[in-house]
Formats: sequence, structure tokens, C-alpha cells
Amino acid sequence: MVLVRQEIGDVLRNFRLQKGRTLRQVASKASVALGYLSEVERGQKEASSEILASVAEALDTPISVIMHEVGDRIAVLEGMSVVPDSLPDELVAEFDADMMVR
Amino acid sequence: MVLVRQEIGDVLRNFRLQKGRTLRQVASKASVALGYLSEVERGQKEASSEILASVAEALDTPISVIMHEVGDRIAVLEGMSVVPDSLPDELVAEFDADMMVR
Repeated sequence: MVLVRQEIGDVLRNFRLQKGRTLRQVASKASVALGYLSEVERGQKEASSEILASVAEALDTPISVIMHEVGDRIAVLEGMSVVPDSLPDELVAEFDADMMVR
Repeated sequence: MVLVRQEIGDVLRNFRLQKGRTLRQVASKASVALGYLSEVERGQKEASSEILASVAEALDTPISVIMHEVGDRIAVLEGMSVVPDSLPDELVAEFDADMMVR
């Protein structure tokens, strides 16, 4: 079973590491307990929507970017293309064609 | 503050209605209480990752599709483009150019 909290945790940790921040810095800026944020990053706790918004803000990362990244990771786990349905058909067709010739 | 549970609720309800299913049918197939699913759809309860996986399966919809849709909706709320970062730059440029001429 694909667990969203596991992917959210991985994505939050990746963004934090990309930005060179420590757990302590992000927890403090987001006003969440360090142990709690650590559990969220390890996929052991579900982050409430309020916590997720605070952590995203502390990471200077829009929630939409986090959710798209989570969707991309789950798509791989589900064995699907990472191109979302919401793109215009002609872009999807071109992307598919582009992938074919590689 | 953008609340992920509100967007997840709206997306789940939209997929359910698109497929012409009742709350009762989906709750029963996903083995969740009808009242709970109703609260999740209205953004009043956070769905656990396990419940989300069950409901997605009951809707015959991959979790990745649900998460991408949630990301798209939040991107609009955040005032961003809906084209995710993971697309090749040339597609993004073309999409932007396409949007300009409309």
C-alpha cells in the first residue's frame, strides 16, 4: 500500500537538505517540536494540514510544489508516467514522442 | 493559510461525483464510516494515509492522480503556474509561450 505520509516525509526532508537547513532550524521556524518534525520526515506521523503549511513556509517552498513532488514520487511507485492529466493533450503527446526517440 | 485537507476533500468528492458514485457506495467499498468519509470530503477531518489509500482504491483512482490534482488546485490558490517543476524546460517554455498568445 502506498502511504502518502511516507512520501511527504521524504519530500520534506529532501527540500530541507537541499536548502542546507537542520531539523532544529526548520522545527524552530515552523514552531513545531523537533521530535515531531523528525517523525513526520521519517513517515511515522501524519502531519496535520496546519503543520504542513507551517513547515512548507519554514522551508520557503510552496505547498503546491511539495504536493506535486509527492504526486511524482507516488506515480513512480504506482508505475505511472509522471506527466499529470492536467497538461494540454498536445504537450503530453509531444512529451511522449520525445520520450520514444530517446 | 492553504489547508491540504480541504483540497483533498474537494478532489475526492469531485472524483466520486465524476464516477457517479454515492458516499455510501464509496464508504462501503473503502470500509470507512460514511460520516467519516463525509467529513473528509468537507475538509473537516484529516484522512490518514491508510484511509486515503482505501478511498482512492474504492474510486479506482491512483493516489498519484489525486495528489497531482491537489497540487494543481493549491498552485492556483498560491497564484502559481500549474506546470510542475519536473517537466523538461523546453516544454515549460512552450507552455508559457502558448499561454502568452491566448
